[in-house]
Amino acid sequence: MLRVPYEELYGALLRAMEALGLKDERAQLCARLFAETTRDGVYTHGLNRFPRFVETVKNGSVLVDAEPVKTAGMGAIERWDGCSGVGNLNAWASMERAMELARLHGMGGVALANTNHWMRGGSYGWQAAEQGMFAICWTNTLANLPAWGATSPSLGNNPLVFAVPRVNGHVVLDMAMSQFSYGSLEGYSKRGQPLPVDGGFDAAGNLTKDAAAIEASKRALPIGYWKGSGLSLVLDMMAAMLAGGKATYQIPREPVRETGSSQIFLAIDPGSMGNANAMNRIADGIIDFLHQATPVDPNQPVRYPGEQTARLRDENMRLGVPVDPEIWKRISAQS
Amino acid sequence: MLRVPYEELYGALLRAMEALGLKDERAQLCARLFAETTRDGVYTHGLNRFPRFVETVKNGSVLVDAEPVKTAGMGAIERWDGCSGVGNLNAWASMERAMELARLHGMGGVALANTNHWMRGGSYGWQAAEQGMFAICWTNTLANLPAWGATSPSLGNNPLVFAVPRVNGHVVLDMAMSQFSYGSLEGYSKRGQPLPVDGGFDAAGNLTKDAAAIEASKRALPIGYWKGSGLSLVLDMMAAMLAGGKATYQIPREPVRETGSSQIFLAIDPGSMGNANAMNRIADGIIDFLHQATPVDPNQPVRYPGEQTARLRDENMRLGVPVDPEIWKRISAQS
Repeated sequence: MLRVPYEELYGALLRAMEALGLKDERAQLCARLFAETTRDGVYTHGLNRFPRFVETVKNGSVLVDAEPVKTAGMGAIERWDGCSGVGNLNAWASMERAMELARLHGMGGVALANTNHWMRGGSYGWQAAEQGMFAICWTNTLANLPAWGATSPSLGNNPLVFAVPRVNGHVVLDMAMSQFSYGSLEGYSKRGQPLPVDGGFDAAGNLTKDAAAIEASKRALPIGYWKGSGLSLVLDMMAAMLAGGKATYQIPREPVRETGSSQIFLAIDPGSMGNANAMNRIADGIIDFLHQATPVDPNQPVRYPGEQTARLRDENMRLGVPVDPEIWKRISAQS
Repeated sequence: MLRVPYEELYGALLRAMEALGLKDERAQLCARLFAETTRDGVYTHGLNRFPRFVETVKNGSVLVDAEPVKTAGMGAIERWDGCSGVGNLNAWASMERAMELARLHGMGGVALANTNHWMRGGSYGWQAAEQGMFAICWTNTLANLPAWGATSPSLGNNPLVFAVPRVNGHVVLDMAMSQFSYGSLEGYSKRGQPLPVDGGFDAAGNLTKDAAAIEASKRALPIGYWKGSGLSLVLDMMAAMLAGGKATYQIPREPVRETGSSQIFLAIDPGSMGNANAMNRIADGIIDFLHQATPVDPNQPVRYPGEQTARLRDENMRLGVPVDPEIWKRISAQS
């Protein structure tokens, strides 16, 4: 495994962003979000995603200079137009705005239309938690998931993020509505490994752990069968309706042309709600109880969402961030 | 099947509520919520739940005269104490308050501590949608669900509700974090039917469709395995922390003594966000596309959350509401 120091990864990404036409703070933030995603161990949405990001800039899906514009709203909630800008920058700006509104009103929300892939959704959960805020955010995506009871894809996998601030380690959940992403299925099928649980249907319509069979049928499974199917639908509806933007079925199906998605960012400022120490004690009580659960495997204690992220982050800062040698060669050669 | 006219069901429940000590509008609303839940086909949480509700009043878990009191908050979000009052009345009042705040601020939230079982969560989704509001709400529960990777229950099944208003039929999702409730497992095991999908683990730790085996092991499955497990945890944290109330691990484990739960009610007023007709067209586009999906079974078109509810509601209003003859005899005899 090739590991590179975080600062070196960030530096190479920054130069690559500048080469793409991003300027100053925008290039810095975009590079930082890609670098941090890789540092945190979400390899599918960091450096490894960068070549596809470049393609979306070059084919005109992503406009590097576009910035979001407020189009409607009142009080605690606003509607913004992402103007086809850079997805992670638009999402970051929207969560910042939701938090600004939360500082004023106790709670704040931004519905963002016409934006691009936000890369790792968890980034905006960490962003909020690091400022002591609770947050909920989600995005719609292109149609890549059949509804429960259907064979054709009418739903997106619509990642949903919850963030809970906590002194001894923020709790950040970042989950898509499909049991496995196509990226993850590809990994299992390349390694010839079975999925740990059923991940979709084979061509005959049977549930299967065979990743290649699911890649072929395009029938990935929503989490909880009918439940995740329903949840994906309502997330799409709320995002598209409140943002006045595109719904999943209107988003181009080809991944490098996926553009125009709708997103929701909600933030709650606990400062308006009572004693911060008392709230933190409640959080610690819950996490302690979780950690005391009897594990199935005595060597695998139960973890909370974000616990593994924090561990990997520390490890990768210490040992260097693992990178794909091929992609790393191309990006670091550019600079 | 015994069917009774809706008005008769409501009347009997109203007299039963009054006999329990609920007064005037409170008795009426509580009876209406139980009756509507039954009318909408959620039989587990309507009339069939009433005997357990009576027990919780008689054992002092539920105080029939207690009303919620505001304890903190600013602007769009507030913290309320449910004072051990009637769960469905407290929840209804909290959603009403969240909507009042949303009318003022675009978005509103109530974090409710120290309340009781809210019966059907979907009731508060319908409540919001019928007033043209988007809503998200959830409750924590007693610990009845092992976290992913654990054998002992450290999580609640924490029902989560999303409501999307729509002229041609509101979309209301009401889902618990367990794939099947214990009530539902009991139904399958009594009928000797296998579950349609894996619902938990047997005593040997294997995933199973055998409901009785899951009732015995007490290892029900979170939706989406590790995903629903994480979602259940963050819902508990946000509810308990923001409400300053009890977390799942602090709630008494015996169902008739389950009291002191924490809940969150969020409402968004789309009136502040743009053109209502445009928003409704977006909703219809999404639902139309869903309905056009290729069904697995040509006789089972794909449905949206709440579609079946609306259908059952009409049918039960026309033909009478199905009731359990035994429970109906006891309640209607009282009056």
